[in-house]
Amino acid sequence: MIRHRLAVVVAPLFFWSSLVSAQTTPKAAADQYRAAHEQQILHEFTSLLAVPNVATDKANIRRNADTLVQALEKRHVAAKLLEAPGANPVVYGEIKTPGAKQTIVFYAHYDGQPVTPEDWETKAPFTPVTKMVNGEPRIYARSASDDKAAIIAQLTALDALQAANIRPKANLRFVWEGEEEAGSTNLGAVLAKYKDELGGDIWLICDGPVDQSGRQTVVFGARGVTHLAITVYGPNRGLHSGHYGNWAPNPAMMLAQLLAGMKDKSGHVLIPHFYDGITPLTPLEQQAIAEAPNNGPMLEKEFALGHTDGDGKTLVELLNQPSLNINGFASAHTGAQHTNVIPSTATVDIDMRLVKGLDWRTQQQRVVDYITAQGYFITSSPPDKQTLLSHPYVAFVQLDDGYNAVRTPMDLPIAQEVIAAVESARGPVVKLPTMGGSVPLEMIENTLGVHTITVPIANYDNNQHSSNENIRLQNLWNGIETMAALEAME
Amino acid sequence: MIRHRLAVVVAPLFFWSSLVSAQTTPKAAADQYRAAHEQQILHEFTSLLAVPNVATDKANIRRNADTLVQALEKRHVAAKLLEAPGANPVVYGEIKTPGAKQTIVFYAHYDGQPVTPEDWETKAPFTPVTKMVNGEPRIYARSASDDKAAIIAQLTALDALQAANIRPKANLRFVWEGEEEAGSTNLGAVLAKYKDELGGDIWLICDGPVDQSGRQTVVFGARGVTHLAITVYGPNRGLHSGHYGNWAPNPAMMLAQLLAGMKDKSGHVLIPHFYDGITPLTPLEQQAIAEAPNNGPMLEKEFALGHTDGDGKTLVELLNQPSLNINGFASAHTGAQHTNVIPSTATVDIDMRLVKGLDWRTQQQRVVDYITAQGYFITSSPPDKQTLLSHPYVAFVQLDDGYNAVRTPMDLPIAQEVIAAVESARGPVVKLPTMGGSVPLEMIENTLGVHTITVPIANYDNNQHSSNENIRLQNLWNGIETMAALEAME
Repeated sequence: MIRHRLAVVVAPLFFWSSLVSAQTTPKAAADQYRAAHEQQILHEFTSLLAVPNVATDKANIRRNADTLVQALEKRHVAAKLLEAPGANPVVYGEIKTPGAKQTIVFYAHYDGQPVTPEDWETKAPFTPVTKMVNGEPRIYARSASDDKAAIIAQLTALDALQAANIRPKANLRFVWEGEEEAGSTNLGAVLAKYKDELGGDIWLICDGPVDQSGRQTVVFGARGVTHLAITVYGPNRGLHSGHYGNWAPNPAMMLAQLLAGMKDKSGHVLIPHFYDGITPLTPLEQQAIAEAPNNGPMLEKEFALGHTDGDGKTLVELLNQPSLNINGFASAHTGAQHTNVIPSTATVDIDMRLVKGLDWRTQQQRVVDYITAQGYFITSSPPDKQTLLSHPYVAFVQLDDGYNAVRTPMDLPIAQEVIAAVESARGPVVKLPTMGGSVPLEMIENTLGVHTITVPIANYDNNQHSSNENIRLQNLWNGIETMAALEAME
Repeated sequence: MIRHRLAVVVAPLFFWSSLVSAQTTPKAAADQYRAAHEQQILHEFTSLLAVPNVATDKANIRRNADTLVQALEKRHVAAKLLEAPGANPVVYGEIKTPGAKQTIVFYAHYDGQPVTPEDWETKAPFTPVTKMVNGEPRIYARSASDDKAAIIAQLTALDALQAANIRPKANLRFVWEGEEEAGSTNLGAVLAKYKDELGGDIWLICDGPVDQSGRQTVVFGARGVTHLAITVYGPNRGLHSGHYGNWAPNPAMMLAQLLAGMKDKSGHVLIPHFYDGITPLTPLEQQAIAEAPNNGPMLEKEFALGHTDGDGKTLVELLNQPSLNINGFASAHTGAQHTNVIPSTATVDIDMRLVKGLDWRTQQQRVVDYITAQGYFITSSPPDKQTLLSHPYVAFVQLDDGYNAVRTPMDLPIAQEVIAAVESARGPVVKLPTMGGSVPLEMIENTLGVHTITVPIANYDNNQHSSNENIRLQNLWNGIETMAALEAME
């Protein structure tokens, strides 16, 4: 650790030195620097992963943010925390380049999904470990891929450019959010408050996985997302299934029936109006989808899927449609803990992904209307006994916030420049109109009037949002090349 | 404790003394003894409840059995453990009465349902506590009602009769099982091995709750039961619901759809042939059902039920039909632990109750046939990747053992004698053809050729099979009266 700290202290002596003119490409600079500093890069990465980063864990969120401010300042990037009431801090860094024609904003997030340690092989999601997978090293930890790898790639790309005396040509801004996995509920307030700091000519969203083919990917939009939880009620305490079975309603069965009516067997959503209002894909977007690799057969084998949803449409096609997914279902106990009981409640967590043209509030209301149409009285807090007795069926529906989808036109000049920069480092890229996953792009566009383009770096099989999240080390190395090329844009 | 032990040691001096002829009724004897020995009875009861008794916990099961053998021997009842390979021991006690015309067998079970301590108010299911409910004391602990109260009632009734110098007229046998809540899988072997010890003119099953009206109840049969667990499969690891939602099948939705097809909204089972082969109720049985109290409206309020299953039929009517109940459902996580994931698996535990005429293996096969008809390939162990890839839909179905229902004809002379004995202590009784819950009566009838009649003592609201199981103390006192009357039968 001491050796590492010395190295970091020494580095700034050469900061943006112009004594030697830039002779190498950003890609070559990234490769050269990485080859010489792998241990140092990994040390910074794993130290960052060791700081727990669930958005509700305010103390550790603050530790993450402070660490990242220091990381920027060590690279002589002007850094600060952008704060808003109740919000986790946004880490902000800026490099002003005299004579710059454009301002490029690099977005990532430093918070991670909640963890269930017992589901992890290591039982310790914040203790990074390296493991060989198919002969290649991967680092396992919460946020290894989603999304701390992107932050480390951006920081290391700065080191690499500086070591090769490549100076930025554009103004660079770094915006690292601290509650993306909690729904970015306060990002809108931060964007409004710090409009001057956060504007630019393009926001580059460094989040998510590259195409499953492994090719570098540039994505022009992302699905929106919202979440809701439904709880339905049987007896107000667990009842003996012998003495009351056939008479006391079973909430797990009630919820199964409610959910079963939401989708047909091919995964098509049956909730009325669910697909109403979708903005059609342009011919250019349809062409990009048609040209994208079809990774379906490979992924079916990988995931042991005997069938897929979507009536034979490809994965890329289906990601341009809205979705409704059960994230979890719980009622009483199963397996060794199971008892012969009629459960008291059943709960399901559902997320919905949205595409351009759909509003998340409307989409939630469509689900609520469906539940109502099934005969349920809906409450917004757990019902009391009188409420339960006053209605044949009661559902407590928790509606979380959400945000809408965006799609940036692929023919914008800045879009073409981004593609050119990425291809200079990584060769021909996969171009996707919409990423399946969600990032809060809508509020960026709405508040700042800036388009977004997503440049992910993670391997597709990174177990993002699940246990055993990981990043393939080569993807981190590739990500440094990509970020170096983007940080060197005009 | 020392004082208590002395009392127990002194008592046998008066054992079955015939110096004073019986002047009191069994009911009066029970009341008199109980009033004078409440603390002693409660001490023995709570000491027994403090010994954990989940059937899989072999060491503690043995401690329960040994304690009960000692309890019988203290009352000069010849006692021993009936053992069979792999079985939890059956505690056996016998009182031979010279000149007896009949042999009455008292059955109960000393094991209890599995526990989830965090669901209990005390967090300690084997630490009995007394709590006032509606101004009356109850004892809370696993097996407080199901079924250790019955054992304590039988033991205390022996003390009471002895203290009042009432000698048994019949041969009495006590059979206390140690794995009833685990499905009585070895009871058949024990019955076969110890046929001579276990025969009699009637088996009195002292298990389950009395009618919800609170009136003493005599039941002439019980539903059979069997259990199965179904697991269905999505991706072989949790996948990001954004990047794969719409394409990767969701096992929770698949299972919801599978389950939803098993029942209509009123709880009627839709699985083909589910109701085929049921033995019709006799006119006498139909009359008993018609005369039984209708506790439905009271129970709906009690359990906060806004509706009930069964198309308006009464609870007692519905308990004379087979049932299918979800005991628990689990897929990924809900609430604070929920993540935006497509779960890998979904599992449901189901129990089925059976009535006379249905065979549990047939009933299981009907469910299996239904699942197959829905397009599932069925495995009897967790499927490997090749199996998952070879079939569009795979369900791992675990079929547990079970047993069938029985109904003893209500017009047998011994049935009339049992009713008369119970009514001598407790007044007019509720007569039910079938108890909703299950006890392994079929194998008793089949192996020993002995009919069974169930004489429960627990309050209906005892949280049997759930957390916070309890017995209303007055029900234990009433149970001592009932058992004394039955132990004094001719």
